Amino acid sequence: MTDPIRIGLVGVGKIARDQHLPVIDASPDYRLVAVASRHGEHAGVPNYRTLAEMIAEQGGLQAVALCQPPQARFEAALAAIEAGLHVFLEKPPGATLAEVGLLTEAARRRGVSLFASWHSRFAPGVEPARSWLSTRRIRSVSIAWMEDVRHWHPGQDWIWEAGGMGVFDPGINALSIATHILPPFFLTGATLEVPENRQAPIAGDLRFTDAAGTPIHATFDWRQTGPQTWDIRVETEDGTLVLSKGGAVLTLDGRDQPLPPEAEYRGLYDRFAALVRSGASDVDLNPLIHAADAFLRGERRSVEAFTD
Amino acid sequence: MTDPIRIGLVGVGKIARDQHLPVIDASPDYRLVAVASRHGEHAGVPNYRTLAEMIAEQGGLQAVALCQPPQARFEAALAAIEAGLHVFLEKPPGATLAEVGLLTEAARRRGVSLFASWHSRFAPGVEPARSWLSTRRIRSVSIAWMEDVRHWHPGQDWIWEAGGMGVFDPGINALSIATHILPPFFLTGATLEVPENRQAPIAGDLRFTDAAGTPIHATFDWRQTGPQTWDIRVETEDGTLVLSKGGAVLTLDGRDQPLPPEAEYRGLYDRFAALVRSGASDVDLNPLIHAADAFLRGERRSVEAFTD
Repeated sequence: MTDPIRIGLVGVGKIARDQHLPVIDASPDYRLVAVASRHGEHAGVPNYRTLAEMIAEQGGLQAVALCQPPQARFEAALAAIEAGLHVFLEKPPGATLAEVGLLTEAARRRGVSLFASWHSRFAPGVEPARSWLSTRRIRSVSIAWMEDVRHWHPGQDWIWEAGGMGVFDPGINALSIATHILPPFFLTGATLEVPENRQAPIAGDLRFTDAAGTPIHATFDWRQTGPQTWDIRVETEDGTLVLSKGGAVLTLDGRDQPLPPEAEYRGLYDRFAALVRSGASDVDLNPLIHAADAFLRGERRSVEAFTD
Repeated sequence: MTDPIRIGLVGVGKIARDQHLPVIDASPDYRLVAVASRHGEHAGVPNYRTLAEMIAEQGGLQAVALCQPPQARFEAALAAIEAGLHVFLEKPPGATLAEVGLLTEAARRRGVSLFASWHSRFAPGVEPARSWLSTRRIRSVSIAWMEDVRHWHPGQDWIWEAGGMGVFDPGINALSIATHILPPFFLTGATLEVPENRQAPIAGDLRFTDAAGTPIHATFDWRQTGPQTWDIRVETEDGTLVLSKGGAVLTLDGRDQPLPPEAEYRGLYDRFAALVRSGASDVDLNPLIHAADAFLRGERRSVEAFTD
């Protein structure tokens, strides 16, 4: 049994409270030593306003989990790396591709572990889906990621600003699964629907293909009320695979497959502990590359204003 | 003396006629064996409608230069690679980052050379600038890339469509130089001005920084009449470097440096020949990464309609 990793968390918002802090508390691999946040608080450990204060006062700190919005994450990540700390990045790993490239190189030089986390890849159906697809010829793929932004992101203004990515904030979860279970693909066209009073899209219709010409279609929509949809359907020459509920349910030709219970963030923190202990990094930019490609290549349409 | 490389060219438009065809004709490293184009023609060699026809009828073909708009380039590039041809890509190397990643992997597997060309890197002042800056501490960088789109891209509708990149078509030349002569940097914010009747920006104001916090500012504008501006100004602790006329003129503290005459495309084709003969590829995505980051992270403002 090795000593727990002394970790600090930066950015006490919804995702930190819902997922990171309970998982860190429950894991024998970690001991939470402090948090830093401009707005949020967390009982039982020292609370700082900034990461710089946390680093200055917590001499034994070994790692940090960065949970603030992507637009504000680079400076903290670089400061942490330069202080010799291992860094866990919430998704997306940055507001730009170039900054994540720079962090990756900085972590390599400083000899610390950098982990760009994609929590949906740790949904229970994802690895079985990847394994099943790896030996089959794919005919077509259809992705539907449709949810109610008012329910999941109440009052989160940053998500609508430039760099907040809008509906790609959940959509990148679908892309993180798709890039993990499918052969490499790329965008051929997209339509992004942007509320006239916002910078980021509320919906996206994305067409991709791969080297074999497979049609891959994705619909992202944040205006879905009632039942929520997070489905990836893959037609193969050998039957149909459906990952639903964001990867928590897997069916093969309509038959439910037995899966362990959902434990995405536990999976992420297990992976981060393994990276730290082996001195490795894991930074896969592909989901963010597809999002950037959609902004670069996609056609924009102005739609009805969105107010929270 | 090795035999000349038997090359075909696809996409006989303005850039092919102005640059590629004269340079291929004048170079001892190449023999032009055919062209393929939907609209253009070229005298003295067989003309085909499509790359597929060219490949089918020209058994001795060894390489192709792809000069069509980026939105249409992937399919041709993949077909050429799979036919065992070396591929020269005009800039930008694709309409998306993901497709260029896929081509890079396909070329590696097939054992052919892939060259993502960035012609401005072969402007005569660029290598001297890179060398001078490599030993100096940089204080700030200012990039101004301002030209008259009506003069340089008359009636080129594809450039205004989604994926055509608008003012980033010339702007990516500035980014290709900046990424070559400066330490790694990333975008912190941008404003893109998009004509209300177009998809692509006519102007951009871009703020970047690097790991040292250096301010790097770029202005791209396609509405410049009169004198045209393609300048990169770098203030260092040790004097001021100015690359102007797109890299054709270099001054250090106001003193003009002696440079050879402009020969960007000759430089590109020399490089491609060297890659083909050594079995190597050269695909640097950084300029396109910065463009994609600007679309992903930048704020859009609607401006006056643009008509040609």
